[in-house]
Amino acid sequence: MIKITLPDGAVREYEKGVTALGIAKSISEGLARKVLAAHINGQVWDATRPIIEDASLKLLTWNDADGKNTFWHSSAHLMAEAVEAIFPGVKFWVGPPVENGFYYDMDLGDKKMSEEDLASVEKLMNELAKKNSTYLRKEIPKEEALNYFSEKGDEYKLDLLSNLNDGEITFYTQGNFTDLCRGPHIPNTGFIKAIKLTSIAGAYWKGNEKNKMLTRVYGVTYPSQKELDEYLLLLEEAKKRDHRKLGKELSIFTMDDDVGPGLPLWMPNGTIIIEQLEKLAKETELAAGYKRVVTPHIAKENLYLTSGHLPYYKDSMYPPMELDGTKYYLRAMNCPHHHKIFGAEPKSYKDMPYRLAEYGTCYRYEQSGELFGLMRVRCLHMNDAHIYCTKEQFYDEFKAVNEMYLKYFKIFGIDKYVMRLSLHAPEKLGQKYVDQPELWIETEALVRDVLIKTNTPFIEVQDEAAFYGPKIDVQIWSIIGREFTLATNQVDFAQGRSFKLEYTNADNKQETPLIIHRAPLGTHERFIGFLLEHYGGKFPLWLAPVQVKVLPISDKFIDYARSVSDKLKKADIRSEVDDRNEKIGKKIRDTELLKVPYMLVVGEKEVNENKVAIRRQGKGDLGTKSVDEFLIEATEEINTRRAE
Amino acid sequence: MIKITLPDGAVREYEKGVTALGIAKSISEGLARKVLAAHINGQVWDATRPIIEDASLKLLTWNDADGKNTFWHSSAHLMAEAVEAIFPGVKFWVGPPVENGFYYDMDLGDKKMSEEDLASVEKLMNELAKKNSTYLRKEIPKEEALNYFSEKGDEYKLDLLSNLNDGEITFYTQGNFTDLCRGPHIPNTGFIKAIKLTSIAGAYWKGNEKNKMLTRVYGVTYPSQKELDEYLLLLEEAKKRDHRKLGKELSIFTMDDDVGPGLPLWMPNGTIIIEQLEKLAKETELAAGYKRVVTPHIAKENLYLTSGHLPYYKDSMYPPMELDGTKYYLRAMNCPHHHKIFGAEPKSYKDMPYRLAEYGTCYRYEQSGELFGLMRVRCLHMNDAHIYCTKEQFYDEFKAVNEMYLKYFKIFGIDKYVMRLSLHAPEKLGQKYVDQPELWIETEALVRDVLIKTNTPFIEVQDEAAFYGPKIDVQIWSIIGREFTLATNQVDFAQGRSFKLEYTNADNKQETPLIIHRAPLGTHERFIGFLLEHYGGKFPLWLAPVQVKVLPISDKFIDYARSVSDKLKKADIRSEVDDRNEKIGKKIRDTELLKVPYMLVVGEKEVNENKVAIRRQGKGDLGTKSVDEFLIEATEEINTRRAE
Repeated sequence: MIKITLPDGAVREYEKGVTALGIAKSISEGLARKVLAAHINGQVWDATRPIIEDASLKLLTWNDADGKNTFWHSSAHLMAEAVEAIFPGVKFWVGPPVENGFYYDMDLGDKKMSEEDLASVEKLMNELAKKNSTYLRKEIPKEEALNYFSEKGDEYKLDLLSNLNDGEITFYTQGNFTDLCRGPHIPNTGFIKAIKLTSIAGAYWKGNEKNKMLTRVYGVTYPSQKELDEYLLLLEEAKKRDHRKLGKELSIFTMDDDVGPGLPLWMPNGTIIIEQLEKLAKETELAAGYKRVVTPHIAKENLYLTSGHLPYYKDSMYPPMELDGTKYYLRAMNCPHHHKIFGAEPKSYKDMPYRLAEYGTCYRYEQSGELFGLMRVRCLHMNDAHIYCTKEQFYDEFKAVNEMYLKYFKIFGIDKYVMRLSLHAPEKLGQKYVDQPELWIETEALVRDVLIKTNTPFIEVQDEAAFYGPKIDVQIWSIIGREFTLATNQVDFAQGRSFKLEYTNADNKQETPLIIHRAPLGTHERFIGFLLEHYGGKFPLWLAPVQVKVLPISDKFIDYARSVSDKLKKADIRSEVDDRNEKIGKKIRDTELLKVPYMLVVGEKEVNENKVAIRRQGKGDLGTKSVDEFLIEATEEINTRRAE
Repeated sequence: MIKITLPDGAVREYEKGVTALGIAKSISEGLARKVLAAHINGQVWDATRPIIEDASLKLLTWNDADGKNTFWHSSAHLMAEAVEAIFPGVKFWVGPPVENGFYYDMDLGDKKMSEEDLASVEKLMNELAKKNSTYLRKEIPKEEALNYFSEKGDEYKLDLLSNLNDGEITFYTQGNFTDLCRGPHIPNTGFIKAIKLTSIAGAYWKGNEKNKMLTRVYGVTYPSQKELDEYLLLLEEAKKRDHRKLGKELSIFTMDDDVGPGLPLWMPNGTIIIEQLEKLAKETELAAGYKRVVTPHIAKENLYLTSGHLPYYKDSMYPPMELDGTKYYLRAMNCPHHHKIFGAEPKSYKDMPYRLAEYGTCYRYEQSGELFGLMRVRCLHMNDAHIYCTKEQFYDEFKAVNEMYLKYFKIFGIDKYVMRLSLHAPEKLGQKYVDQPELWIETEALVRDVLIKTNTPFIEVQDEAAFYGPKIDVQIWSIIGREFTLATNQVDFAQGRSFKLEYTNADNKQETPLIIHRAPLGTHERFIGFLLEHYGGKFPLWLAPVQVKVLPISDKFIDYARSVSDKLKKADIRSEVDDRNEKIGKKIRDTELLKVPYMLVVGEKEVNENKVAIRRQGKGDLGTKSVDEFLIEATEEINTRRAE
């Protein structure tokens, strides 16, 4: 008998050789039908692999990342089986799971895969899946494995084998397909209920353009047709809401080769959104007792040696500008500059907490391959602030920061979020983390305490803290269900010492402040990218670049339209007149496409009654009102930052 | 007889050998008494030097820069005469005029000059001046000059002589003092009516620290005691208003060695001023139809090759950051980024004029020796904008920009200003200036036309234009009479072509826009430096970092003080409470020192009547008012940006 420890700490005894699936069945048949794989002592195992020693066990289902990955990787094998049946002689390279689905790279010889072939493969996969073929794991001596693929003439798998040692080689077989694979896999193909092969692409072998171009087939599978349909719908919706597409259509930002990759230029419409976000942040931070500062974007090397960012962070920074024997760096973060302002004048406990905020622009040299629209850029406008406080003030300050996050979520209609509390790893103290074991434990406890007491949803992650203290990454979901990592909220007990920052306490002694680094709105770049998708470009009134478009029915009413628009502009409403010589229907359609929230149609009747006929984007006719009435209502909608 | 052409074009005949002074006397004795030197064919000459050929002549008085310089250089000779009398054996190096006065570098051997010595020299100078000694010019063969200074054992003048050719060497003598000097000088020492030797400093010979340290004596002289007194008063006032001193006292900005020279960090108080200036600019520009953009601070080398800034401007830029084979430059100007935004989408004549504004931060590598507080920095926050317009729109656009300057001058109480119109030099077309002779002439005429028609005071300067077109530098005077160069307003007919910027005109043809570069508030750095001096740190209410300080007479009234302060804060008035346990007299004195515009003193009486006793900075008691009454009045003062 062996002892199996379950996630809740319960220990059960089983026969040696029991499988995770067997254990699941011993609990409930319903559970067993959902088990895709298992964590055995923290490693992912096939649910059908015999367990021969005492172990901890966690059953993995579709709701676990490792469960999903196993499902998709098994789907790649299923696809390979179908491809091999249709393209005999095909050779496979690797077939990993990806963020949404899987792919397999393959060498089709002198054949090519067409869209029709793809449909055939998908069809065959469905048939094969229904056979409920078991994924069989088999340990193979290296010699035997080499013989097998030599006979097949498969140079790709032989290449993989050359990097593997005897004793760690396994084959997996389902149906008529056998592959060199470390696994694990789901119990059988029957779990795969819904299949969609999404695309065919070219991919150089090992990513090297000097090598042969292989065929990469992407697919995605789900345990139910309903889930696949939902996913495909999301995909379609996400495509429509793609921030790069909307960013161009709505003239939000542009990129330019002469300026450089990852360096967006914000056009007038994008700048209006930036300024509205900054206004919101400034108002919120002023009310919360923050002071604002403005600091340069560069500093001498020495500043980043003191802060500890160099050499630790060097790869993410632009290279230095060297002159007169001094190296200047473009800053990748604002904190060292803020520390210098804190330190510029003596501080006492009466000055604490001391909160410094700046929409500081930072530059980070992300690798070209990582750059993606506004989501991964090299120029970052950060809603940054640093709070210098005493240990006694920490709880309230950190709580207030958290509440600020929640306040923002509410304004932007972000209903789903989770805080990801990143902790240190004790074994990496002195290397990845500042070597202050007690301070780590103390501050981690303080942060956890805030999250628990405020009922904030959070998860804990080991070994992902900043080098100077624990941090909270905030993950949010857009309205169509896509996940974004927004911003961080970090505790720092190290930089205060490195910069010799001090305040005089009530006993007239010098103490080092704790520092909170926080950025609730993250960067303009990522946040506006998120908002473009979240709102699908249909910004709430307060954020919309053009808030009102006045549409005269004919040229006769242009003067009246202009007088209405001017009146709105005087009241700080962003208004334009569509004075083109076009039919009113076309004017309305074009304005809808530009996603302007309000259209005010004016003709004979409106002019005579000093009114406007109001249309709301996506909603149509809202009836006729006097200009003043509309102005008051719109102003109220703007000032309260209502979603609608 | 020779022909003398006067500045008004009149030609008069005089005996050969006539002097400028003689000509002045022939016009009026009064005029002759004021003549210090003369421009003969554009060169500065002694007023007493015989003219032997036809020439153009301009008499130079104290009102001409060259007149002043001659006066001060002659004063340096007078000082040398006095020093030689008191320190026999002294050897002199050079003694040029400077911005305000003159200095002379001298080798006193093993002697030192004390403050008492300085007073003695000044006293003797006064006596010598009264002797009305003539400054005698004498041409000397090189041989004779070498003998003279060899006998004197004066290695310094021998060093100067070694670089001079026979035939270009002159001596000047007044009283007992003879100097090697190319002149010119004023007629006699009697012109120097008021003398102040201001300081003694050390200066390495030829500025090289490996050479001997010489003694540098600074002085300033005036043609009347009244003018000297006024100057000394100004000097004293300027010292009190020194923006570096006030910047520190009022916590406006700080500099830090680890960040780097010329890179100010704006502290919370300075940032409030920055934000108020930006608010003013944004309001003004929004009303004037500008659109705002936000662009990165770096770009690839290629952008600056296209714009023509590289290599032309390279020495003023930070060196490039080179990686992955690409050079990135920190930008020294915003225009190329704006051009890219103009070019990002097709434009038609209906989009013109297209005005793009940004508080863009630029970086310029000023030489260390040039850096000076906020006046000469390496990081510049510019109130920048670029107007793209058709040739037909140019007049109105340029006029509107000029009017914006005047509007700002009024707000800031700048009564004295002059526009300096910088023109090209035809002989430098193709080198220093874009080779488009007709466009130069055309745009220069357009600009001149605006200035004349709007009655704007301006002067014309040859050969100081930007490489892409004529420009206007704006010179303003602070309230204590010091001159500042504020900002520029430039026409650009070249970059539009370099960037291939186009718009479709009404005839459906492509045209290149004219571009106006303008920055009425200049840079935050220089403008706030100017304002610190201009206001002596006593900012008008709308700009003051802290607008109101509520001073409770004793601890008993702190709660009331806080409630008053909170009420003001809710109305966006920047208010603080002085809750220190200090006497009210000290609270008032300390608040005066911090130059807070309003003090609200609250005690028993005020609490009972829900009032505040108002004190205005520098004015004292203004009587008692209700909180609401004060709030309304203060808000009105802020919103109208009144000076007081």
